[in-house]
Amino acid sequence: MNVYFDNASTTPLLTEVQEVMKDIITDNYGNPSSIHRKGREAKIVIEDARKIIASLLGASTGEIFFTSGATESNNMALLCSIRDLGVKHIISSPTEHHCILHTLKYVSDNNLAKVTYLEVDQNGRIDYLKLEQILAADSGKKLVSLMHVNNEIGTIHDIGMITEICTKHSALFNCDTSQSMGKMPLNVQETKVSFLCGSAHKFFAPKGVGFIYIKNENMIKPLVHGGDQERGIRSGTENIYSIAGMSKALEIAYAEMDERIDTVSKIKSYFIDKATTQLKDIRINGAKDYSAHNILSISFPHTEKSDLLMMNLDISGICASSGSACSSGVENDSHVLAAIGHDPLRKTVRFSFSHFNTTEEVDYTIDILKKYSPTI
Amino acid sequence: MNVYFDNASTTPLLTEVQEVMKDIITDNYGNPSSIHRKGREAKIVIEDARKIIASLLGASTGEIFFTSGATESNNMALLCSIRDLGVKHIISSPTEHHCILHTLKYVSDNNLAKVTYLEVDQNGRIDYLKLEQILAADSGKKLVSLMHVNNEIGTIHDIGMITEICTKHSALFNCDTSQSMGKMPLNVQETKVSFLCGSAHKFFAPKGVGFIYIKNENMIKPLVHGGDQERGIRSGTENIYSIAGMSKALEIAYAEMDERIDTVSKIKSYFIDKATTQLKDIRINGAKDYSAHNILSISFPHTEKSDLLMMNLDISGICASSGSACSSGVENDSHVLAAIGHDPLRKTVRFSFSHFNTTEEVDYTIDILKKYSPTI
Repeated sequence: MNVYFDNASTTPLLTEVQEVMKDIITDNYGNPSSIHRKGREAKIVIEDARKIIASLLGASTGEIFFTSGATESNNMALLCSIRDLGVKHIISSPTEHHCILHTLKYVSDNNLAKVTYLEVDQNGRIDYLKLEQILAADSGKKLVSLMHVNNEIGTIHDIGMITEICTKHSALFNCDTSQSMGKMPLNVQETKVSFLCGSAHKFFAPKGVGFIYIKNENMIKPLVHGGDQERGIRSGTENIYSIAGMSKALEIAYAEMDERIDTVSKIKSYFIDKATTQLKDIRINGAKDYSAHNILSISFPHTEKSDLLMMNLDISGICASSGSACSSGVENDSHVLAAIGHDPLRKTVRFSFSHFNTTEEVDYTIDILKKYSPTI
Repeated sequence: MNVYFDNASTTPLLTEVQEVMKDIITDNYGNPSSIHRKGREAKIVIEDARKIIASLLGASTGEIFFTSGATESNNMALLCSIRDLGVKHIISSPTEHHCILHTLKYVSDNNLAKVTYLEVDQNGRIDYLKLEQILAADSGKKLVSLMHVNNEIGTIHDIGMITEICTKHSALFNCDTSQSMGKMPLNVQETKVSFLCGSAHKFFAPKGVGFIYIKNENMIKPLVHGGDQERGIRSGTENIYSIAGMSKALEIAYAEMDERIDTVSKIKSYFIDKATTQLKDIRINGAKDYSAHNILSISFPHTEKSDLLMMNLDISGICASSGSACSSGVENDSHVLAAIGHDPLRKTVRFSFSHFNTTEEVDYTIDILKKYSPTI
C-alpha cells in the first residue's frame, strides 16, 4: 500500500488544478506585459487569479502580489519592512520556519534590526502577555512575525489575539500562513494583519509560486528589481500557469473547506485513537486544544528499532516526515522539537493528512508502526 | 492570419516541453527535500535537469542554481557580488534590461557601489577600449555586467572580448544571456564568465523559472533565505515542473541550434529584403554585422498613420513589440532607443522570429505594413 501522510510538506495537485495548468501550458504563452493580443490573454489570466485570491481573503486586488513562494514572500516582508518602513525591532519565535529564522539570523548578523525571540512552552505556544510586554517596552517601529500554524507540530498561534496586541502597540504583523492557507478560514478584514504569506504547493497547487498580501498602508519597495511587473513590487515575467493553478486551488479549498476539515479531523482522531491504544509510551507533540486538524506529530520511545523507523516507513510505502521537509534533506532533530524541550533520544514522526487520505491508510500505518515500536 | 513575431518577449512552449511538464504535474508531486520515496522522485527530476544544463554549458553541476528567472538571477549576481565578494564598482551600459538598470539604480541610490555606464554608439555597441581604460584605472574589486544580445535591437556584445578584458584586469563578469541562451552556442569553458543568467521562457520553455551559473570561485550567499535548497544559495521549494521543462527545452535547443539559426536567419533576411525594397524611408536599428539572427528592429517614418501602427498590427493578428515587453505595458520610447540616439518621432517595431515562423507570415506582415507606412 502506498500512503501519503506528508501533506504539510507538499501536496498532490487537484485534478481541476492540473487541467487549468495544462490548458494554459498548451495555449497561453503570451507575455503579460506585451500590449498585443497574446499578451492581453496572458494578462487576463493573472489578473483573474489575483481577483479570486483577493476576494477569498477579503483583500483588494492591489494588495495581492505573486511571488515564487512563501519563502520569497516572507523574505520580502521582513527585509523590506526594515529597509522601507523603518522597522527597528522584529519579534518572532524559535519555532518559525527557516525562511523566517534564517532571514532573521541574516538581519541580526548584519545589524539591520534588533531581533527578539519569544520563548515557547512545551507545546510550542507563545506567551501573549510577554509579547505585549515586549511591544509596550519599545516605542520604536516594530514588526511581529509569527506563523499561523506550526509546520512540524501543528500548534496554532492565535492570530486574532496577536493582531489585537499588535494594533494596540502600533506594531506591524507578518503572518506566515503556509500551513493554514486554504485549510482554515482566513480573512484580512477580520484578522487585520500587515503581511500574509502563502505557498501554493501546500494547498494542492503547484510548487514555485505563492503570494504576499501587503496591506495598502504598509506598501514596501521591491526585493527583486526589474521590469516593474506586479505594480513595481516584484519584477520578473509572471509564472502564469502556476498562478492560475494556485487561484483555482484556493477557490476550491474555500468552497470545500468545512467538508475537508471534517474529513481530515476524523482521520487525525482515528489515528490518535488507534496509536494511543495500541502503541506503548508514545507522546503527541504540540498543543492539544490549539492544534491543526491535519498535523499529528508523534514521539516514539527510543528502542533498537526506532532509529530505522523512518526508513522502515518509507520501505513500507508510507511517506511521512521526521522534521521539516524544507530543510537539507538530512534527518536531524529539528529546531522546533529542540525549542519545545523534546527528548532527542525519542524518534519523532510527523504525519500530515489531506482529504484524500482514508482510515484504511491509517490502519495500514498503525500495523507497520507496531512492527517497529513497542506495543501495548 | 495570426503571426507571432514577438519571440524575444516570450516564446510558445515546445510540444516536448509541454509533455514533460504535464507528466510531472500529474505524477510527481513530492517535495525534493523530503527523504522518502516521493521526495526522492522529485529530487531526481531537478538533479537530472541540473546535470543536463550544466553539461550543455560546460559547467559543473555545482555551479548551476535554479531561480524564478533571469530577473532574480541578475539581481543575485549584482547585489550579492557587492555584499559577498567585495565588489565596489560595477561597469554596465544604458542599453541593459531593466532588471540590470533598475538594480543598478538601487545600488547607486543606496551608495552600495560605484556604477559606471559605458556609452554606446548609434548601433548600441560599447567601446571595448573604453571598458579596458575604466577597468585599468580602478585597482579595486570590479564587476562588469553586460548582456550578450540586446533584447530590443539585437546588437551582440562580444562576450569573448569582454571576458578577456575582465580577466586581464581581474574584474568579475556577469553576462545576461536572456536573449542568447539556447539560440547561440554558449560554453563557460570557452567564455569564462563569472555569472551567467538565463530565463527559460525565452527558449520555448515555461515562464517563472530560470537559472544562474556561478563560477565556483565566486560563490555568493543567498538573496532569499530559508530552507537551504539549491545548496544554500537559493531557498524555496523548487518549481520542479518548470525546471524539468527548462532542461528539456535547452537540450533540444542545443541539438537543433544550427538548423534553427539557419531557418531564422533566412526569415530575417527575407523580411529585410522585402521591407527595404517595398517600404519607404525605413531604418534598421542595431549593428548590421553584430546583430542577433532573430531580432529585427525597424524604425518607420513619422506619418499620420504611424502612431497607430502597433494597434493596426495587433488588429491584423500580428504580435510584435514596440519596445521591451518586459516594461509596464505602456508604449513609450524605450531607454535603448534613447541611448542609441533614435529619433523619437519615428515609430519603432521589433519583430523577433523563431523557427516556427514562415516566409508566408513575413509576406502577410509586409502587406499590412504597406497599408500603414509609405511605400516605395
